Amino acid sequence: MTEVSAGPEPEYERVVSGYDTFHYAKPFECEWGGVLPELNLAWESWGELSEEKDNVVLLHTGLSASSHARSHDRNPHPGWWEDFVGPGCPIDTRRFFVICTNLLGGCYGSTGPSSTNPVSDVPYATDFPIITVQDMVRAQLLLLDHLGIDKLHASVGASLGGMQSLMLAAIAPDRVDRLVSISAAACSHPQSIAMRFVQRQAVMADPDWREGRYYGESFPHRGLRVAREMGTITYRSGPEWMERFGRKRASGKPPRLDEDFQVETYLAYQGDKFCLQYDPNSYLYISKAMDLFDVTDPKAGDDERVRQGGGLTDIRCPALIVGVKSDILFPVWQQRELASLMREAGVSVIYSEIDSPYGHDTFLIELETVGEPIRSLLE
Amino acid sequence: MTEVSAGPEPEYERVVSGYDTFHYAKPFECEWGGVLPELNLAWESWGELSEEKDNVVLLHTGLSASSHARSHDRNPHPGWWEDFVGPGCPIDTRRFFVICTNLLGGCYGSTGPSSTNPVSDVPYATDFPIITVQDMVRAQLLLLDHLGIDKLHASVGASLGGMQSLMLAAIAPDRVDRLVSISAAACSHPQSIAMRFVQRQAVMADPDWREGRYYGESFPHRGLRVAREMGTITYRSGPEWMERFGRKRASGKPPRLDEDFQVETYLAYQGDKFCLQYDPNSYLYISKAMDLFDVTDPKAGDDERVRQGGGLTDIRCPALIVGVKSDILFPVWQQRELASLMREAGVSVIYSEIDSPYGHDTFLIELETVGEPIRSLLE
Repeated sequence: MTEVSAGPEPEYERVVSGYDTFHYAKPFECEWGGVLPELNLAWESWGELSEEKDNVVLLHTGLSASSHARSHDRNPHPGWWEDFVGPGCPIDTRRFFVICTNLLGGCYGSTGPSSTNPVSDVPYATDFPIITVQDMVRAQLLLLDHLGIDKLHASVGASLGGMQSLMLAAIAPDRVDRLVSISAAACSHPQSIAMRFVQRQAVMADPDWREGRYYGESFPHRGLRVAREMGTITYRSGPEWMERFGRKRASGKPPRLDEDFQVETYLAYQGDKFCLQYDPNSYLYISKAMDLFDVTDPKAGDDERVRQGGGLTDIRCPALIVGVKSDILFPVWQQRELASLMREAGVSVIYSEIDSPYGHDTFLIELETVGEPIRSLLE
Repeated sequence: MTEVSAGPEPEYERVVSGYDTFHYAKPFECEWGGVLPELNLAWESWGELSEEKDNVVLLHTGLSASSHARSHDRNPHPGWWEDFVGPGCPIDTRRFFVICTNLLGGCYGSTGPSSTNPVSDVPYATDFPIITVQDMVRAQLLLLDHLGIDKLHASVGASLGGMQSLMLAAIAPDRVDRLVSISAAACSHPQSIAMRFVQRQAVMADPDWREGRYYGESFPHRGLRVAREMGTITYRSGPEWMERFGRKRASGKPPRLDEDFQVETYLAYQGDKFCLQYDPNSYLYISKAMDLFDVTDPKAGDDERVRQGGGLTDIRCPALIVGVKSDILFPVWQQRELASLMREAGVSVIYSEIDSPYGHDTFLIELETVGEPIRSLLE
């Protein structure tokens, strides 16, 4: 695999130790009507909480990351944002108390479809309710209540995390002093919905999926592998692959229908790795939550849901919006649109556009272009 | 399905009647070393062949079309280029004798994986050899030999057909007077290879695929459906879907993991329709042939194959190259690159760039912007 490991690679290590668990013992009502009888939220932290509890930065993750944003004594593995969070880093833990949570619906310690349903004593599977980005951040607010943190110095996230960052500032404007939203959008647009839909279809087409009730049996690995291969295409960009792989073949052998070009070996590797790290049902539910995301003003006929609060017009804190020109999952016009809608709503917006070859994954890779605007906003 | 049928829709009718079959009874050696003991090529024609046999326009199809480019007495169904070919149309059958063939490797009358292998008397399945775009056009040349046609007035195609159009003029420069290549490229780039690879993986991940030996049993419909859904994303564009579907839901019911938004219903419909029309193994082999396409000069280490002839530098006839700004499968920089490489090689090139919302499928939809430059070149 030496050829395909050339070039930077995000770390998506499965981290199943060294986190704290917040247990909420009361029923949690989800936006679309389902109820979780109780919930757990896995979280990790770095730095020291000030006496006034006024130095908190809350990190929101993308679809596939755990709460392990950075290594620490209880878990020395590098985190998914290892170089962005720490002493002297853009999110400086000498000054800030940084919290990162595993998503509601996830599989790295927070309650999700693989968790045991206390009512039935078996995993929720597809009895898990439909959840939304609003549900995810409402679960985070319960954790902040528990910790006695009234107000965040900042809410920071990229991709799905960038959606959460916006949503938190929209539903709890009194509790967020500033927000960072990277490579996200004001709503999920149909092309992104289409890309995620087909990934979900790949999982659900696998006979091993069994309507989600695969726990204790073989997992739908083939389907999840295809889904992740497709996802990987949407996370990176053509120019990067042109430079990195070109039309290089993986071997000198004659072509075949299966893996052949180096770019194919790379995709297969990403797909295989992910299968061993992620619960397929978590993938379905979190992917769906991304599709449902919309903080624009409702348009008649476009969306029948009754919003419980939480639109861009509710945001009151200053915001840093970051877009990447080569992103094909959340194309840069969507971050421009987001910045523009927020300004129209009276929000003070710094908009930063990055010209990187790394597409949607740029936030995991480019420390300077992504990190420095965050540092400026936080200070 | 009224909501999803709004807007133009390409016709991909399965046409299994009204074509002629050219039978070649000798072994056909494929570029990568496999041998077909014999081959059939399905073809249809429109207009009258001139006495001098000098008014022939050869049409090359994309991956999924049959030889039925236009309706005729023996098959009145509308063809895939119904409005582009005919009396008074951009490809005017009052003047030209127009031939369209089904692809070698296809499933609409030409020899492909579903054809009976005369050696074993069962379908080839995955004993079918790896084929290339060069093999496809070499089979067409055998048909032209059979018909006594020495030279084409024009070679015309889009997508995979645009690749064939280039390849034919490259391997038989004496036999092509002018060529049209729409929404194609000088070679398949890694992002396009990646998109097709994942589609093939979706088919091959379906347990019903059975290493390709599914004939007489259940077909891998679930896998092909997912593949076509993904393909459909690459054929259209975000702006069109934004206009057509927005974030409209298919019903007023609460969200669910399966089809929900209208764009999802549309994709599912496209996937279902295709499953009933196309052989999954043909899909694999033809998709692979597209990945292998390269008429650029070989770069050291990039490609180990020994080219049997056929690069851009061999082309001698004038060419019309057409690109579409919203194409995400063959992005417009690839047609610009193609036009530029051909000019460097001394070819007279007309380059036309279309600003359409229909992405890669524009050639099936926009009669004027696509058709008129073709008409000009032909006359």
